[in-house]
Amino acid sequence: MTVSTATGVACANIALIKYWGNRDNDLRLPVNGSISMNLDGLVTTTTVTFNASQRDTLTINGGEITGKGLERVSRILDLIRATANINEKADVISENNFPAGAGIASSASAFAALALAGSKAAGLDLSERELSRLARRGSGSASRSIPGGFVEWQAGANAEDSFAFSIASPAQWNLVDLVAIVSAAHKTTGSTEGHAVAPTSPLQAARVNDTPRRLEICRTAILQKDFNALASIVELDSDMMHAVMMTSTPALHYWKPASLAVMTAVRAWRTDGRPICYTVDAGANVHVITVESEARAVEENLRALAGVNDVLIARVGGAARLAANGDS
Amino acid sequence: MTVSTATGVACANIALIKYWGNRDNDLRLPVNGSISMNLDGLVTTTTVTFNASQRDTLTINGGEITGKGLERVSRILDLIRATANINEKADVISENNFPAGAGIASSASAFAALALAGSKAAGLDLSERELSRLARRGSGSASRSIPGGFVEWQAGANAEDSFAFSIASPAQWNLVDLVAIVSAAHKTTGSTEGHAVAPTSPLQAARVNDTPRRLEICRTAILQKDFNALASIVELDSDMMHAVMMTSTPALHYWKPASLAVMTAVRAWRTDGRPICYTVDAGANVHVITVESEARAVEENLRALAGVNDVLIARVGGAARLAANGDS
Repeated sequence: MTVSTATGVACANIALIKYWGNRDNDLRLPVNGSISMNLDGLVTTTTVTFNASQRDTLTINGGEITGKGLERVSRILDLIRATANINEKADVISENNFPAGAGIASSASAFAALALAGSKAAGLDLSERELSRLARRGSGSASRSIPGGFVEWQAGANAEDSFAFSIASPAQWNLVDLVAIVSAAHKTTGSTEGHAVAPTSPLQAARVNDTPRRLEICRTAILQKDFNALASIVELDSDMMHAVMMTSTPALHYWKPASLAVMTAVRAWRTDGRPICYTVDAGANVHVITVESEARAVEENLRALAGVNDVLIARVGGAARLAANGDS
Repeated sequence: MTVSTATGVACANIALIKYWGNRDNDLRLPVNGSISMNLDGLVTTTTVTFNASQRDTLTINGGEITGKGLERVSRILDLIRATANINEKADVISENNFPAGAGIASSASAFAALALAGSKAAGLDLSERELSRLARRGSGSASRSIPGGFVEWQAGANAEDSFAFSIASPAQWNLVDLVAIVSAAHKTTGSTEGHAVAPTSPLQAARVNDTPRRLEICRTAILQKDFNALASIVELDSDMMHAVMMTSTPALHYWKPASLAVMTAVRAWRTDGRPICYTVDAGANVHVITVESEARAVEENLRALAGVNDVLIARVGGAARLAANGDS
């Protein structure tokens, strides 16, 4: 057989309106739509090579992964094989250029890069929507790492129309995400388990039902570059997700004291007139969003806070792309 | 005229199922029922003396209070005067035996003591229900400081049947409340303003609608002395109230980093098998509930936590009472 290989590169993304809870865990159909921005420079690069071996293999950052991590990748490869009508197994080699435990979910960029590289290596030429749907099956938020810039993932009525699309290009707004690292510890409850317990919170239905309103405010704020409107809705949405997490059974408490210290500082700086807001994913680290002209000062202020161990910086990133020869 | 005077003593209380939001701000009719335990030894002692002076006066801990603080007291005195059909003004002298800013709301014990002393000084002999309703008009949670022990305040269908009653005496269960003081700062948003913004949270309706379920679990846990059941529902309820606070407009963030550190420690100690749980009112200090046999060890553990400045200790208290001669 012919060896077929391709390499995909995809950005991580930070949700401004959060995804939390599935209405179908297997298909990863979310209970609510979400909006994110891609994070330029924080990427996963994945090479998929179909070959004559007896099993799929997975290597992440130089270490071989077996068990559940490999199974999750093989399920995506199975979807690709079924579509391409091939049977070959594949070697998957993946590298994240950002540190593990940095508050950057690697599953979004990883499954976006896998969907792109895997489908291309299998000889498919999928559309952006098809790629977004495929990436979604590996990790919901990966659907948002396929299109570029500011991205909305619509909940959709069914598996076919639950995909993400760009609502504005990276050039729309020079936002910067400064990730205040307060803990490098691996989170005790992963997102997949977290999504599963979301319905146990007495507050989840209210959060979900209110989401179209928050999506509209966030979308408009991005299109109008209205930072104050963005700040209010992004912080509210993050706090609403953590409200659901804290009140689920079992209760999920991701914030650490230093997370709270950063959030409090961010609110105080905004009161002082600085365009700045926070959002926190299923972890302790705090994503601090500001504009380019303020980024350097914000970074200094964050590094001066007790409990902040490091600050990662990302600007608005583009769409997932195939790597040119020589890309790594 | 005859000078008529009486002295009332009432305990503070800590809500196990919280009151947050009014359906009628003037009558202080709550959107949901609540359950609390009285805090023995943390009391307000109030003497009301009707006399021939031209205006009401208010002295708290030796300092004269005018303005809004006095107006709030005069409104209760007006209700008493209307019922007793008298016109005399009153001097109100009130002492709290617990420090201000200790995470103990003084309004509950203060308005309970005022309702009792004021009505007695005016020659009225009100029932417990009548006293509870009267105290409620000054501060909603004051309705719960009239009956003894473990107390439920039913939301009620109208102003007449929104009062508190005892569901178990202090002897029912030897619980101890250890208040971890992490901040003596005066809270930036008082409860009265907080109740007013509660409806702006997209999560408040869900919290309110779920309250009958939480009340039932809490009531049963108290009657059966089931600490694990109590712990789960008390922490959930506290987190649900703070979820609403954080997601209201304006957002109310009462937790400080040290509050979160105490809550995290409490959950870890419970996982280790200790009967312990936390609850936090509209402030930063953390009420840590345990049983008598564990109180000393818990106090030591709390004092060893960074950020805990002091620990106040209270056991289950009795009903509001008239002071005997010589009481102070």
